[in-house]
Amino acid sequence: MKLVQDMLQGHRLSLARLITKVENRDSDLAEIMAEIYSKTGRAQVWGITGPPGAGKSTLVDRLIELLRSQNKKVAVVAVDPSSPFTGGAILGDRIRMQKHSGDPQVYIRSLGTRGQHGGLSHATKEVVLVLDAAGFDIILVETAGVGQTELEILGLAQTIVVVLVPESGDSIQVMKAGLMEIADVFALNKSDRPEADQLLRELVTMVGMTDHDEKSWLMPVKKTEAVKNVGVSELLQAIQDHQTYLTQSGKRQSQSWEFIKSEVKDILSDRLNQSVDATFLTSSGQEVMQQLMSRTLDPYRAADLISGVSSAS
Amino acid sequence: MKLVQDMLQGHRLSLARLITKVENRDSDLAEIMAEIYSKTGRAQVWGITGPPGAGKSTLVDRLIELLRSQNKKVAVVAVDPSSPFTGGAILGDRIRMQKHSGDPQVYIRSLGTRGQHGGLSHATKEVVLVLDAAGFDIILVETAGVGQTELEILGLAQTIVVVLVPESGDSIQVMKAGLMEIADVFALNKSDRPEADQLLRELVTMVGMTDHDEKSWLMPVKKTEAVKNVGVSELLQAIQDHQTYLTQSGKRQSQSWEFIKSEVKDILSDRLNQSVDATFLTSSGQEVMQQLMSRTLDPYRAADLISGVSSAS
Repeated sequence: MKLVQDMLQGHRLSLARLITKVENRDSDLAEIMAEIYSKTGRAQVWGITGPPGAGKSTLVDRLIELLRSQNKKVAVVAVDPSSPFTGGAILGDRIRMQKHSGDPQVYIRSLGTRGQHGGLSHATKEVVLVLDAAGFDIILVETAGVGQTELEILGLAQTIVVVLVPESGDSIQVMKAGLMEIADVFALNKSDRPEADQLLRELVTMVGMTDHDEKSWLMPVKKTEAVKNVGVSELLQAIQDHQTYLTQSGKRQSQSWEFIKSEVKDILSDRLNQSVDATFLTSSGQEVMQQLMSRTLDPYRAADLISGVSSAS
Repeated sequence: MKLVQDMLQGHRLSLARLITKVENRDSDLAEIMAEIYSKTGRAQVWGITGPPGAGKSTLVDRLIELLRSQNKKVAVVAVDPSSPFTGGAILGDRIRMQKHSGDPQVYIRSLGTRGQHGGLSHATKEVVLVLDAAGFDIILVETAGVGQTELEILGLAQTIVVVLVPESGDSIQVMKAGLMEIADVFALNKSDRPEADQLLRELVTMVGMTDHDEKSWLMPVKKTEAVKNVGVSELLQAIQDHQTYLTQSGKRQSQSWEFIKSEVKDILSDRLNQSVDATFLTSSGQEVMQQLMSRTLDPYRAADLISGVSSAS
């Protein structure tokens, strides 16, 4: 495909078009992936999450600056599958990052949420593969929360940074949200606020209480003030330390396998959905449907029958 | 199964245990569904959604009171798959509803979000089937937003009530969020606030602009003040009108089919996941894995191979 060749040679518009094809689940998808896949596996993928208003985008902005000074090519994928009731801020944040838009070594893309029913985490995975093939050294995946879809999306990151702000009750929220299990690095942003030191102490205590056998990496807690560019290089160092840890511990391999396995599962799952829809249009499918509707056949036995029809056809 | 028999005879503890089994994806699941399925299809399922702080739970509380005065058995399933950062309020809301806890004709249940990775909407569907079999007339499914998972969950409701509050920009949020497409009834809560009438006008205008050919039901916009019990019976009437419309237009049948089809798909999807995991442990699966990891085989071709292995075994 010419589009893939152009993208691999650094043509930005081709990259943008390929990502749009992936986002829209284009019919060329399998072909695109077949052509790019051998070029993937080189990028570092970092996840950034935290509550709305924690200053994630400003932090990402600062990280981009630092990474550019290290001569790294950086891509940002911003995904917000959470409630559109609070979606207003995201757009503003994207606009703020536009100061990097003139830099050919920086690529920023938001992934839409409308009409993405069920496919958002799959599309995000494949967008990351495209950016990886395009030669970006670091791909930052930013999400605005840790709901079910966000967790699936964060599953593709090698290092997850959880951004918090000093507010009463936050360390309990961290526990409740299961963030101790997903975080590799904590950024305590807006750390000039008076409650910052208390949250810092609580977080460090909580990190100390985690199961060391299970997680031989002790999550660092870094104080930052993204707006004033304070603490950001220390945060970057902590992320890079985690990347070194992944390589040295052998965890990078198992992570990479989990990521690829989930991609294969997503592909099979999409095919399954299409095949079930097709099967219900056949005469034996229609019969199963009638029995389901009259409640003489239950959904589990119907699943047996439907998978029989699908694999026989 | 004794547990199912007891539940069908109105034993509350058996109902609670069955729901826990469904929530935990118990190994008895297929058997449970086979035994209850013929008893389902009678309940009305209403979805209630809206932004945090819109007063959904108070409104649900008032609706329960009214429905009880009409001698209906009512169940509430509260699901919050969204960010746990804002999860604090939900628990409080549940506690507030406990005033109905002494009433044997009311059943309230929260579904957990932790460890529910990917299975929350499936589990919710099956919990609704259990409550339907248990003889509840109305099942209210409450979600705290309209992200991807929430939309999947709302897909099981026959009538969707979107609760809004008068705040500037809200009607634009409604458009952006795609709520015009999912709402059957709007509740404009806290309508004593000064901006209420403007939002009301905007909503009515937007409803008027929707495609009438596509949606022959014109979504009513009802002003409520749940705290003072104002407008709630009018809201209830609008919901019941929509239920009548579903029956008269024939849409109830097609809705019911979509619901059952998605349940069959979810079952097949769960099985697929298990089968893929098992396949990757076989020797041919291990070979595919090696080729994926060395990037000599792409995920789409791997999916072809894996489904070949699965259906041959």
